[in-house]
Formats: sequence, C-alpha cells, structure tokens
Amino acid sequence: MAAQRPMTITEKILAAHAGVPWVEPGQLVEVRVDFLMANDITAPLAIRAFREMGATRVFDPERVAIVLSHFAPSKDIRSADQCKVAREFAREQGLVHYYEMGEGIEHALLPDRGLVLPGELVLGADSHTCTYGAVGCFSTGVGSTDLAYAMATGETWLKVPETLKFVYYNRLQPWVTGKDLILYTIGRISCDGATYKAMEFTGEALADLSMDGRLAMANMAIEAGGKNGIFNPDQRTLDYVAQRAQRPFSPVWSDPDAEYAEVYEFDAAQIEPQVALPWSPDNVRPLSQVERVPIDQVFIGSCTNGRLDDLRTAARILRGRRVHPEVRAIVIPASRDIYLQALKEGLIEIFMAAGCVVSASTCGPCLGGHMGVLGKGERCVSTSNRNFVGRMGHPESESYLANPAVAAASAVAGRLCHPEELGIRYEEVAGVA
Amino acid sequence: MAAQRPMTITEKILAAHAGVPWVEPGQLVEVRVDFLMANDITAPLAIRAFREMGATRVFDPERVAIVLSHFAPSKDIRSADQCKVAREFAREQGLVHYYEMGEGIEHALLPDRGLVLPGELVLGADSHTCTYGAVGCFSTGVGSTDLAYAMATGETWLKVPETLKFVYYNRLQPWVTGKDLILYTIGRISCDGATYKAMEFTGEALADLSMDGRLAMANMAIEAGGKNGIFNPDQRTLDYVAQRAQRPFSPVWSDPDAEYAEVYEFDAAQIEPQVALPWSPDNVRPLSQVERVPIDQVFIGSCTNGRLDDLRTAARILRGRRVHPEVRAIVIPASRDIYLQALKEGLIEIFMAAGCVVSASTCGPCLGGHMGVLGKGERCVSTSNRNFVGRMGHPESESYLANPAVAAASAVAGRLCHPEELGIRYEEVAGVA
Repeated sequence: MAAQRPMTITEKILAAHAGVPWVEPGQLVEVRVDFLMANDITAPLAIRAFREMGATRVFDPERVAIVLSHFAPSKDIRSADQCKVAREFAREQGLVHYYEMGEGIEHALLPDRGLVLPGELVLGADSHTCTYGAVGCFSTGVGSTDLAYAMATGETWLKVPETLKFVYYNRLQPWVTGKDLILYTIGRISCDGATYKAMEFTGEALADLSMDGRLAMANMAIEAGGKNGIFNPDQRTLDYVAQRAQRPFSPVWSDPDAEYAEVYEFDAAQIEPQVALPWSPDNVRPLSQVERVPIDQVFIGSCTNGRLDDLRTAARILRGRRVHPEVRAIVIPASRDIYLQALKEGLIEIFMAAGCVVSASTCGPCLGGHMGVLGKGERCVSTSNRNFVGRMGHPESESYLANPAVAAASAVAGRLCHPEELGIRYEEVAGVA
Repeated sequence: MAAQRPMTITEKILAAHAGVPWVEPGQLVEVRVDFLMANDITAPLAIRAFREMGATRVFDPERVAIVLSHFAPSKDIRSADQCKVAREFAREQGLVHYYEMGEGIEHALLPDRGLVLPGELVLGADSHTCTYGAVGCFSTGVGSTDLAYAMATGETWLKVPETLKFVYYNRLQPWVTGKDLILYTIGRISCDGATYKAMEFTGEALADLSMDGRLAMANMAIEAGGKNGIFNPDQRTLDYVAQRAQRPFSPVWSDPDAEYAEVYEFDAAQIEPQVALPWSPDNVRPLSQVERVPIDQVFIGSCTNGRLDDLRTAARILRGRRVHPEVRAIVIPASRDIYLQALKEGLIEIFMAAGCVVSASTCGPCLGGHMGVLGKGERCVSTSNRNFVGRMGHPESESYLANPAVAAASAVAGRLCHPEELGIRYEEVAGVA
C-alpha cells in the first residue's frame, strides 16, 4: 500500500473517488461522481452535448437531477421551450430527481432533500454548485459539456486544487450571519483570491452557524473564484443529513496536519454586518461605513439567502411594520418545502401584510431573470450573491448585497439600514443564525 | 324640460354624465368621467400622449388609477422601465390610487377597493375594463390617447351603444358559474355578436351569482365585442359596494319599458359547464361534449377567475389531492387582498401542498406575459378569458377556457376533466357561486 500523507477534506474526497490512497494539489485525477445536477438553462445544453457524444442512457437515473429554477414558471416562449427539452429528457431517461418549475432552486432543494451528502463528489452545471460543500462534500460547478460526459459515464477528471483554510475564531456578533462572514472574506481576498482553490471554512465561530448559514457561506465560494467551498462535518451537519439522506454516505474530515496553501485567520468578534457595494462581490464594507443610500427594491431570496432561517429573520423584522411606500420588497422562498414551512409558521402572512410581494420559488431577479428585474438607475438591496454591472437588470442599476436582516430593515426604511436604526433589538430576532 | 323616454341602465348613465335628460343609441355625447385607469402596458403610452397634448395636471388625482399588473414584478428591463415611467408620473401627479407591482390586477383591485361604483362612468386603458359593469356602472376600455384626453380634462366622448338584453331564466345548475354563462353566451352570439353594443345581463339565474361570479361575467363582454357589460344593481350589489365605496354614488336601473336592440333568453337549467376550445372564446362546447385531451398546464387566475370564490372552489377540489405529475398548475390570486384572505382561509396551503405553483398577483400567463408562458405544442386549461393563437405563448400551443372547478379537476386528472369524474360531489364544493 502506498504511503499515506495527511490530507485536507477536499483531497480525501478526491482520493476516495479516484480510488487511490492519496492525492496532492495539481494532480489530475479521474474520479467517479456521486450526483449530478443541471437546471433549465444548462440542461438543454448538456442534453445536446450528451446526444452529440453518442450517449443514450445516463449512468444512473437516481443520480442525475434536473431542476427547473431560473426562468420558472416560464417567462417567455424561449424559456418554456428550454424547460420542455429538459422535461422530455427527464421522462425519457426516467430521472428520479426531476423537479418541475416551482419546486425550488437546486441549491436549496438538493441539500434539503438529502441528495448531496458528506464525503460525496457532486458536479452541477451551475456556478453555485459549490453550495453543497456546507454538508462536507466536494461540489463544484462545471460546464454543460463536462456535465454531459459525467452524465454518460458517471466519471469526470479534475485537477486537485490547493486548499485555503479560513479560520473564524472568537464568537459571532449580533446580526452577523454566514452571509456576512463570506462577504467579509471575499472583501479580504478579492474575487480572484481563491481561483481554482478549495476554500475550507473552519473555526469556533462557525459552530454557532446553522446549516442554512453554512449553505449561504459555501454558496459564495465561487465569488472568490473558489473551485469549491467546504466545511468539515460536525454534529450539526450529521444531524441535518441523518434526517434526510437518501443514500448511505461516508463523511471524511481534514487531517489535523494537512497542508494548506495559505491559512487566513479572522476574528469574528471584529466582523459586523457587511455590504458588497456595486459592482462586485468583493467591494465590501462594514455596514456602519456605508452611506445610507435610498433604494427602489429589496430582494430577499436566491440560493444564497432564500432559506428558512433567512425568511424567519426577515419576517421578525417586518412583523407589524410596513414596507416603505417607494420600495418594492420581493420575497422568494428558495423551495416549495421552505415556502410551505414558512406558511405554517405564519411568515408568508407577515410578508404579505407588510406589503412584500411573495413569489413562487425561482432564481428570478438574482440573475435579472424575471420577477423583479431592475430598470435604469434603480437601486436594490439584495440577499443574493452577485452584483456585477447589469446582473439584476439594467446596466445602470445598482445592487447592494447584504444579509436578510439588513435587507428587511432597508425595505422598511427605504434606504440601506441596520435593523437597530429602526429600534429593533437583536434579542427580538435572535434564535436564528 | 325635454320629454323623458324609457332608457336602459347604460343609456341612463350616459345621459346623466352628459348632463342631458335622455340619450338614444347612435347619439354622440360628451360625458364627464368618474374614474380612469391605466396599467403598466398602457400608462406609459397614455402619459406620452398626455404630455404631447400639452397637459400638465390630471383633472383629479383621486380619480386616476395606475396599476402595475401585467409584467409585474418586472420580467425584464423593458417592463421595469415601463413601470418606472408609470411610477414617476404617479408620484409627480400625486395619484392617490397608484398600485405598485404585486398589489393586484386592476379589474380585481378597483371593484374590491370601492373605486368603481353603481351609476358611474369609468374608462380604462385595458380591454377588460368592462368588468366593472358587474357593479352597475358603465365601464369600457379605451385606447391610451383617449385615456390621456380624459386624464387631462375629466371628459370624453362616446357614441351611445344599442343594448342587447340577455335573460337567464330558471336556476343555475350545479358546477355552473358566471364564467360558464358568459362562455355559453359568447358561443351563442359569437365574438362579434355584440360589437359596440351594451350587454345587459338579467334574469333570475343571476340572482344566485356572487359578485365574483358577476365580475367574471361582465369581464368577458369584450370577448363578444361588447362596448360594455352591465348588471342592474340588486341588494347583493348594494351590500358589496356599501362596505367599500370610497365616494358617494347614485345607482340607476333600466326602465321596465326600455328598448333593446335584441333580447336573448337562455334557459339556465339547460346550461352545463362550458369550455372554449382553441382558438377562440366563441368556439364553445358543453364540457360533456369535449374530448378529454391530455394537458401540460393549468392556470387558475386572471381578471376573470382569480377571485376569492374561484380560489375557494379550486381549493376544495384540490384539498387532499395532488396535481398530476405531468401538469404544472399555476395559481395566481388576482390581488394582494384576495391572496391574504386566501392565506387566512388556508387555501394557499392547500394549493402548495397539492403541488400547485402559487405566484404573486399578476396577469402573467393569461397574456403570455410571464409566470407560465406555454411552449411549442403545449396544452393548457385556463380560467382566463382569451385563447387566440399564441395568446398564452407559442403559436402552436393551445388553451382551453373553463371555470375554476373544471380547471382544478383537470390539474388532478392530467386531462380535461369534470370534477364529478374524480368522484367529487357538488355539495362538497358548494356554497360558492
């Protein structure tokens, strides 16, 4: 047997899937995949590539998900026809995990349904596939052609990434969420600070983070260029997956003496709610240092912050308050499951009574897709993940990325706003991370 | 004083607004208007015409409504910019009845908010403005330039229409709604059977119809070419408006000896649920005679059938059942008020649990706008009002117009379906008209 070397969690997963005792950064490996995903934008491209390479059957109809999420329900004939291509392929192949429009955004659905699990290797034809690293799997976005090859063969090749270790020591401050930690991190290392590297998130501050908070954090690894973002599973992770895992799985953890390309240590006690100003997710400032610009729209949703914790926080701020008359506040639960639970908890009623517009699950305005595209000169506070020029609509619109509490407070104030500026105490909304 | 002549309700309203004792069909009259309306498609055009005619102020900021309903929340940059034009005008003019995206479809909002009242004269830059005739006003759709003139002056000119009288004698049968009566009527007289004529709806069968059912009926007068559709107010009408009227109003009624261009008498006892087949609202058959074609989508909503009665009926059919796996069932409450009430009654939870997609209020798929546009070859059962070629999406898609009970049953069956085919007894869903 070959000599062992200490490995990071990312390296261990890749080694196990390559069937070798160890791997090292830079090495090219052929790996088997546990789960694949495409959406209504990428599935039609992947299906075409799949056919062009002469493939006829997917390697395993239980391990290929198609999720109609981006322009769903269809915004126009073209998006309807895209969905149709995906739907017909799913039926033809007997895909067990085909999700119709309205079921949710893939990055909320797949973890919540127990389809991406600790120790697994997951590919998705969507850049935010890195989200699933929150449960301790290796998960990365690929192009549609790469996905097509993996759909046909159950395999792919990857270059083993170097790993950057991010240690958040000390405790989280009030109002600070996973979204703030990842915005802070991207602000520190920049949008290409982790290009083709694994981002491993560790440290005592993360123990306090709910799974929803961790999913939000891993979700934005790609905004720093990361190949993947990943958490070592803890008891919270194992509890989360135990309730929902649809397959057996084998969690792995980084060795204590694993080697990292770089280690960043951040004092969580010094991190307050963060805002990414236009036009980049790394143009980050602490909220206290950001001008209170007036806004036209607030978006609470997306694969970053459309989860139950996010909706609970936003609802506790909006309860008994009204959205500012010159603001449209759009709330989009990230999946049907989340929507139904929010409904049972009375959150949807709070949003509706406060004057929010509550939509069926869709990526929608995050990518300027539909359900709240910004017009010329409009300004939005958004809980989503990207604020490039024109991302949410007109090239002259502006998006400010923030956490759900800040977004909800801003909806009430009609300008960027910290909840405490509305006289809201953290204790009133606490209990959610 | 000039000699009186017996008049229809339509003639009486026009005479009163022209300040003359009587009018007769064919006469051109200059009339004052009580209320005006434009939406996100038509307001920008009306505003441009308003400016071009040198106008600076609307005649009364309490009597001009702008409602963002069609592509709202915005589906793209263009629709966002359209909304922006409307919004800025509303702010500049201090319009009291400006409704932001998500507040609802104008034809649900204005009657429910008590803004269109018995005896009034209402113009709207939308063809379904005829809806408000259900409360006993004269209400008709006009082009944006006509609307602009009325916005500036509070007046317009009209040619007094001839009136067709539709008498529905006998009692409504189980499962038959206002939607079925109007589909039946259009089927009988054709899409141009009432061109530039007032359609006056009377008869004992209508006494059983809720206001929601009457609004659905008046809504589709335009599908027969009607200038307006109108009901003589009864106690139900007066109760409805008493709770919500935002202005004093003076109801009027047709004189018993008024003259009609034609009188149609229909035996309500002979009318069963109706379906308009592609591609015209007058291609109507009784449901029992229509082939049970498989379907891809169901739409329950629109200014025709997105009201509380409609949602209650659909929910009672969907309660404890599941939408067919190959059908997308899209439910869109026609306004925020309706959505909130449906939420309180548990209807939204029933829809979500059954697998429906519940959207924020919008016209959406009715006009192939967004939130469920049909792809090539797709077939939809829709509670909306038009099924022309390409109305809901691809020119090769097909829409079948039906009432909400039939639509909900079809969603479960995956094909056109009468609720009784699912073993549902009328008594289980009765109590709503």
